[in-house]
Amino acid sequence: MMTKTSVQPLLVNYKTLEEFKRFKEYGNQELTMLEDLESNIVENDSESPFFGVYFGNALVARMSLYRVQAKYDNYFLPPQDYLELWKLEVLPDHRNQGYGKALVDFAKSFNLPIKTNPRIKSHSFWEKMSFQKAHYDVGRDLGENPLIWLPSGVEEREV
Amino acid sequence: MMTKTSVQPLLVNYKTLEEFKRFKEYGNQELTMLEDLESNIVENDSESPFFGVYFGNALVARMSLYRVQAKYDNYFLPPQDYLELWKLEVLPDHRNQGYGKALVDFAKSFNLPIKTNPRIKSHSFWEKMSFQKAHYDVGRDLGENPLIWLPSGVEEREV
Repeated sequence: MMTKTSVQPLLVNYKTLEEFKRFKEYGNQELTMLEDLESNIVENDSESPFFGVYFGNALVARMSLYRVQAKYDNYFLPPQDYLELWKLEVLPDHRNQGYGKALVDFAKSFNLPIKTNPRIKSHSFWEKMSFQKAHYDVGRDLGENPLIWLPSGVEEREV
Repeated sequence: MMTKTSVQPLLVNYKTLEEFKRFKEYGNQELTMLEDLESNIVENDSESPFFGVYFGNALVARMSLYRVQAKYDNYFLPPQDYLELWKLEVLPDHRNQGYGKALVDFAKSFNLPIKTNPRIKSHSFWEKMSFQKAHYDVGRDLGENPLIWLPSGVEEREV
């Protein structure tokens, strides 16, 4: 029997922030969350932009997801709120179990367009997830290689 | 006798685009330049946002540099034009010759603030170049770990 992978919102607390250290893409975002928690700027168990998959009690996959407001949308037609997805990562021992796909499917379930700036060498994964390359525009994309996912009725904006 | 490393603007042509393939961070930006050249959307030897260092006839270091307009500035005080620097890379056989520093010094010579989103594990280099971490703001920085350089008289904007 197949078990459905459960994707959960991750709350800001010391346990989660400790688990984040096991992921490669650990940076200012996590450090700022930790500082905010330590200095009581955010409460324990407050919301974070992260979603994750647990295997038993261990966080084994995660992504960060942020809703960008329509007024900042330079990618889609008509201009609209969209999701920026980043830090999608599955820990090495837990790959090829469909966790990455479960996270992306969760993001798609909002039925908003999605933009991501993939890590080098992950393009075949994103292609399987039906993401496409946005037409590159230096003034908009600078150092990014944006990939986008278009729900039905949404087009890429011409640059 | 020390020779000063010469930083040159790189023009869009088939030789340069072929040399770009030797760099790790090759993506949409380079592919779009190649397509534009092939389809005559840009002329041969037109300007590019890249600057480079040659060793003999071979391109051995490069960076991309783009002037972002003041109205899009969310990093500096007072708001002003700034430079976004990315794809700074020195080919493996030519490291530790000061080429990376020469490129960064060239960027600094415009006397505009600079923002970069460094590759993981390059932080000690950027620290030596007097870059500092911007205070992370999820809605602005999303998946980036921005580093900034402030010329005299410029401050970081509070988030």
